[in-house]
Amino acid sequence: MRDWPARFSSYARRLIPSAIRGLAESGPAKDMISFGPGEPDGSLFPAAQIQASLTKLLSDNKRAQEVLQYAASAGHPVLRGRIARYMRDKGVPCGPENVLLTNGAQQALDLVAALLIEAGDTALVQAPSYPGALQVLVARGANVAAIDRADGPRGRASLIYAMSNFHNPTGRSLTLKERQDLLALARERDAVLIEDDPYEVLRYEGELAPPLLALDTEGRSIEEARTIYLGTFSKSVVPGLRVGWLVAPSIVVDKLILMKQTHDLQAGTLAQACLADIFDWVVSEHVDVLRKAYRRRRDAVLEALAAEFGNSAGWSAPQGGFFVWLNLGEGADTRAMLDEATRTGVAYVPGFAFHNDGRGSNFLRLSFSSAPIERIPEGVRRLAAVARAKR
Amino acid sequence: MRDWPARFSSYARRLIPSAIRGLAESGPAKDMISFGPGEPDGSLFPAAQIQASLTKLLSDNKRAQEVLQYAASAGHPVLRGRIARYMRDKGVPCGPENVLLTNGAQQALDLVAALLIEAGDTALVQAPSYPGALQVLVARGANVAAIDRADGPRGRASLIYAMSNFHNPTGRSLTLKERQDLLALARERDAVLIEDDPYEVLRYEGELAPPLLALDTEGRSIEEARTIYLGTFSKSVVPGLRVGWLVAPSIVVDKLILMKQTHDLQAGTLAQACLADIFDWVVSEHVDVLRKAYRRRRDAVLEALAAEFGNSAGWSAPQGGFFVWLNLGEGADTRAMLDEATRTGVAYVPGFAFHNDGRGSNFLRLSFSSAPIERIPEGVRRLAAVARAKR
Repeated sequence: MRDWPARFSSYARRLIPSAIRGLAESGPAKDMISFGPGEPDGSLFPAAQIQASLTKLLSDNKRAQEVLQYAASAGHPVLRGRIARYMRDKGVPCGPENVLLTNGAQQALDLVAALLIEAGDTALVQAPSYPGALQVLVARGANVAAIDRADGPRGRASLIYAMSNFHNPTGRSLTLKERQDLLALARERDAVLIEDDPYEVLRYEGELAPPLLALDTEGRSIEEARTIYLGTFSKSVVPGLRVGWLVAPSIVVDKLILMKQTHDLQAGTLAQACLADIFDWVVSEHVDVLRKAYRRRRDAVLEALAAEFGNSAGWSAPQGGFFVWLNLGEGADTRAMLDEATRTGVAYVPGFAFHNDGRGSNFLRLSFSSAPIERIPEGVRRLAAVARAKR
Repeated sequence: MRDWPARFSSYARRLIPSAIRGLAESGPAKDMISFGPGEPDGSLFPAAQIQASLTKLLSDNKRAQEVLQYAASAGHPVLRGRIARYMRDKGVPCGPENVLLTNGAQQALDLVAALLIEAGDTALVQAPSYPGALQVLVARGANVAAIDRADGPRGRASLIYAMSNFHNPTGRSLTLKERQDLLALARERDAVLIEDDPYEVLRYEGELAPPLLALDTEGRSIEEARTIYLGTFSKSVVPGLRVGWLVAPSIVVDKLILMKQTHDLQAGTLAQACLADIFDWVVSEHVDVLRKAYRRRRDAVLEALAAEFGNSAGWSAPQGGFFVWLNLGEGADTRAMLDEATRTGVAYVPGFAFHNDGRGSNFLRLSFSSAPIERIPEGVRRLAAVARAKR
């Protein structure tokens, strides 16, 4: 049969590749110093704790049968409870019934988009935005517009997608005022506010304002909220177990449980049981180890940028997360520059990948999460040399 | 915010609960003998082998970092290769590039439905059919019609969904002639044929005709096929790792890799690495253990049915899988009977759950996969008593 493309649905035709994911899958060349993929550093994975937990779960015959079996579509009950308590500590008045476990935050986002978007609806995003979110919104047929565009679509928006903390790619966190403005915008546009918060545990300094969902529920029940919160274990523990979550009014969670059941029945039982088992240790001890290690890398990359670029470029100074957003100035073309950079032995993600309206060509994202810290200065030196040559 | 239902997309509104999944989540009452959920028997899970494999993968520092990290959306390369070889042994001329790893066969089905169905398209199904497939097709907006209905929609169908082996719920396998007829029907209706085959390894006697995909590719390349094959490790290993796969022309797999990436990035890295590690042992040794154990249960249930029902009911005599399909005769109402059965201490799935056109009221599905074998006679005795009282 040779006419497959003619058989693809309008949904399938709207799927677009992710520039970031493409980089991640091509892998680094020899001697490459990669500031590309936003992967956590594998040497920081708590492999021993995960192994100990899995051994405990699987050595007990009764528990082994449970953790390898089918389980509830909503997720592991103990893990739902742990996450609800964690979110309450951040000011979100929620219970386990407000939590749905997913295959990472990416699935949480896809479920929410499928819940809310009818093709042709408006979806508002920060500019720049996480490319995986742009992919999801475009595939669902949304008319995706940046919040900051005066010429964007007016009237009702189905949803507003925002990262509140240590934004991908800018590294910035929203101030309290910016959070209040975003909630006001959601009310004004009659939109659901999607708060994507994968990096919040990786805070190296400063204080964070409360989550959008906490501000939205101040003095009232979560059942009144218009905000849906997305979290994940991909950065705080490991990505390979594929567990994330969302927190929302229970009417939303109930509908999404049904969608989750239809899409893939449930998240992995063993993975969820393991995370429930090590949850308290992760929050009380492990995240401190991560913060210290990534903070050193952040410092190394900021120091190298100051040494190599001086006043010839601008960059964000993130207080957490994985990313520095580098502005090479008017006229720079970070997409065109990538080939030369790769040949020189340094990788990054060009800024256009974070926009869907052609902007970002003079920006690039540096991820400091996985390059060896002692190689960071040399990587930034190579980058600066390429940028100078192209000017 | 109180108007959530008004914000739900047409897709979300079409989601329907699964009768089977509801039963699975309510759990058995005290002294209940359940022939309800199609869960594998946890006491047959290869927990020790899984634990040994996970320990091996996680004790090696370099491998641990790999198996806990992000990985390719298409799936673990070694596992893709193993599955391709396994499918070649069944007569399907395929390579790793024809294999996509998913979160169980349910996700494979959902991806395929999202790929092919535009709301209003016709989807043809066997009558009865697996309820999880009916859920997916209805949610995607398909006009779902049973193949055997003379009054069904004519003309082009987007897809035909069929289980070729040890069908859920009937337990029957298609003969070679029936497979050829199904392929002819797919050609006649210009449809893609979806072959769902989760139970094929659980063969207790008899021989199976080749997979629909093997017949479809006889004497030609898989790139010419109109059949997409769905497989899973949920029955041959465990459900809780959530790994299944699909085999299709590479143009289909390439598009679905992009969809998988958009929906949830990838299946669990650790789970896939573990299955790649134990794959050969599962196929060469473990499935024989499963076959022997489930065969004894199948024999026990068939023996009990003959003893308790005699000529007062009809049932299928499956050569594999988990299910017996019981016909209580004209006028029986297995849905109405379920309350009384539950009070008596026996559970099953009523036949209506496997149809979307109101049929099946005098049928019920008995799953012999998880009830303790020594309790099977008593369970069937209770069922027969309830059926007699209701006649």
